[in-house]
Amino acid sequence: MVSQGSEMVTLTDRAAMHAWSMEQRQEGRRIGFVPTMGALHAGHLHLVKQSLAQTDRTVVSIFVNPSQFGPKEDFDRYPRVPEADREMLAQVGCHALFYPDVASVYPEGFQTTVAVEPLGSELCGRERPGHFQGVATVVTVLFNLVKPDKAFFGLKDYQQFVIIRRLVRDLGMDVVVVGVPTVREADGLAMSSRNRYLTGEDRTRAVAIHRAIGAAKTAFEAGEKGSARLEAIARRILIDAGIHRIQYLSVRSADTLMPMKMIMTDGVILTAVKVGATRLIDNVLLTGSPS
Amino acid sequence: MVSQGSEMVTLTDRAAMHAWSMEQRQEGRRIGFVPTMGALHAGHLHLVKQSLAQTDRTVVSIFVNPSQFGPKEDFDRYPRVPEADREMLAQVGCHALFYPDVASVYPEGFQTTVAVEPLGSELCGRERPGHFQGVATVVTVLFNLVKPDKAFFGLKDYQQFVIIRRLVRDLGMDVVVVGVPTVREADGLAMSSRNRYLTGEDRTRAVAIHRAIGAAKTAFEAGEKGSARLEAIARRILIDAGIHRIQYLSVRSADTLMPMKMIMTDGVILTAVKVGATRLIDNVLLTGSPS
Repeated sequence: MVSQGSEMVTLTDRAAMHAWSMEQRQEGRRIGFVPTMGALHAGHLHLVKQSLAQTDRTVVSIFVNPSQFGPKEDFDRYPRVPEADREMLAQVGCHALFYPDVASVYPEGFQTTVAVEPLGSELCGRERPGHFQGVATVVTVLFNLVKPDKAFFGLKDYQQFVIIRRLVRDLGMDVVVVGVPTVREADGLAMSSRNRYLTGEDRTRAVAIHRAIGAAKTAFEAGEKGSARLEAIARRILIDAGIHRIQYLSVRSADTLMPMKMIMTDGVILTAVKVGATRLIDNVLLTGSPS
Repeated sequence: MVSQGSEMVTLTDRAAMHAWSMEQRQEGRRIGFVPTMGALHAGHLHLVKQSLAQTDRTVVSIFVNPSQFGPKEDFDRYPRVPEADREMLAQVGCHALFYPDVASVYPEGFQTTVAVEPLGSELCGRERPGHFQGVATVVTVLFNLVKPDKAFFGLKDYQQFVIIRRLVRDLGMDVVVVGVPTVREADGLAMSSRNRYLTGEDRTRAVAIHRAIGAAKTAFEAGEKGSARLEAIARRILIDAGIHRIQYLSVRSADTLMPMKMIMTDGVILTAVKVGATRLIDNVLLTGSPS
C-alpha cells in the first residue's frame, strides 16, 4: 500500500520554505500550519488532522526553539526523534515538513524580539522569564516564512494560544489562529511531549491535575462562580494527591487572562505544577462547553 | 488639466488598506510603500518618485506614531498638515494614501512590541529610549497591512534604515527595503519636517552640520581612515559654528553601526545635535561614492 505520506516533502531552509509556500499560494491553495517542537504525540496529530480538514495543504514545522527555554530548563534533553516524527506525519497525510536548523530561523546577527506584554509575563511567564518572548518571536518568523492561511495551536498551552491570537491581531498578520481542544490520555492526563519524563509513580500522581481542574469545572457548572472558591476546590485535590509544588493555580478571563473575582462566562482555570522533576501544565475552560 | 493625482484613493482603516493591497496583488501589480509622519517635503517626494519608478502602485502612509515619541518630545506639536500633504501626493502621482487613526494601527488591547537590540539602543536610541521600539513596531504593523513588495526609507535617518533592514531580515518579511539618498537644501542642510522649527539664526547655524560631516568625508577620501581623527575634524567645525550640544558624533560601520577604530570601506559618520530648541540629525557614508 502506498500511503499518502510518501509524497510529503521536507524543507530545511528559508528559501525552500518560501518557494513551496509561494507555489501553493499561486495555485490558490489555502495553507494550514502546525508549529511544533517535535516529539509528536496524538495531540499534535489531532492538530494536523484539523489542518488537513480545514485547508488544502498542511505544513508542520519541527524546531526546538532555544530562545523559549530558560538557562536551567530542559533544552538539551528535550526529546528529539525526527525519524519517528517524520513517519507519523507522512502516515497521517501531512504535505510538508519544515525542519530548519537554527541558522535558518535566526540568521547571523539576529537581534529582533517580539514581546506581548503584560500577557507574556503572567502565569507561565512569571515562572519562565523570557519564555513567551521566545515563543512570540519564533512564531512571527515562522508565520512570515510559511505564510499560512490558518495556524493550529493546542489549547493545552492556553496562555500561548491567547498570546499568539493577540500577537496576530496586534501586528495585523493575515493568519487565522485556530485553538484546538486538548487531547488527553484515557485517565485524563493532558498529552505532552514532557510526559515521557514521568516515572511510574509520578505518572499516577499526575492524573490528579485534570481531576483537580475538572472538579472546579464541575463546581462552576453547578453554580459556583467565585474564583477563589473554585481555586480552593482544585488546590485541595492537588494537595491530597501529594502534588505540593503548585507554581500557579488561577481562574482568569478566557479572553484576556486577567484575574476576575467572579466568572459569569468565558473563564478558564489554569495550573502549572511540578510532579517529581517534571513541570506539567493544564487548563479547562469554564464555559459550560466541553474542553 | 486633469492631474494624475485626481485618482489617488485615501484609505483610513485596516480593512480598506487590506482590500486595496489584495486587489493590487491579485492583479499582479508590485506595491511600493513610503511610510511617513506627514509634513511632507521634497525629501519625501523623492522617496515617492523612487517608488513610482520601481513599482506599479505606490502607497504613502501618514501616521504620527505616538509610540516613537518620548514623554518630553514634540509629539503634540509635530507639524500636521494633511490637506497640503494630500495635495502634494496627488500631484506627484501617488496611487493611495493610507491615513489611519490611532485605533486602526493599534487595536484595543494592543500590547505587542518589536525590538531590534542592541541596534536600537545605540546613538539616537541612547538619547531617545524606546524610540526605535516604537519605529520597529509600527513599521511591522504597517508592512503587514500594506503588504509592499518594496519599501522606501530616507538615508537621512540612517540608523532607522539599518534597523528596518535588520528587522525585515530577522523576521523573514517579504519586503525589499530600499534606502534613498538624503535630499538637501541648496546650502547642504538635510531636509527634515523639523527644519520648520528653526528660527533664522538657528537655520543659518544648522548649515554647519553638513559642512562638518562633509569635511570628515573629504578627509576620508583623502586617506584619513582613523575614526577618532575623522570625528575630531567634524566636531571642530560644529563647535566653531556655535553648535555645542552634540548628542553624538560617531564614525561607525555602515552595515552594523558598530564602532570601528579604522574605516577602510563602508563606514558612516553620524551626528545628532541641538540647534536652539531643535534636535537635528545627519550623516554621510564614507565609501568614496557620493551621498
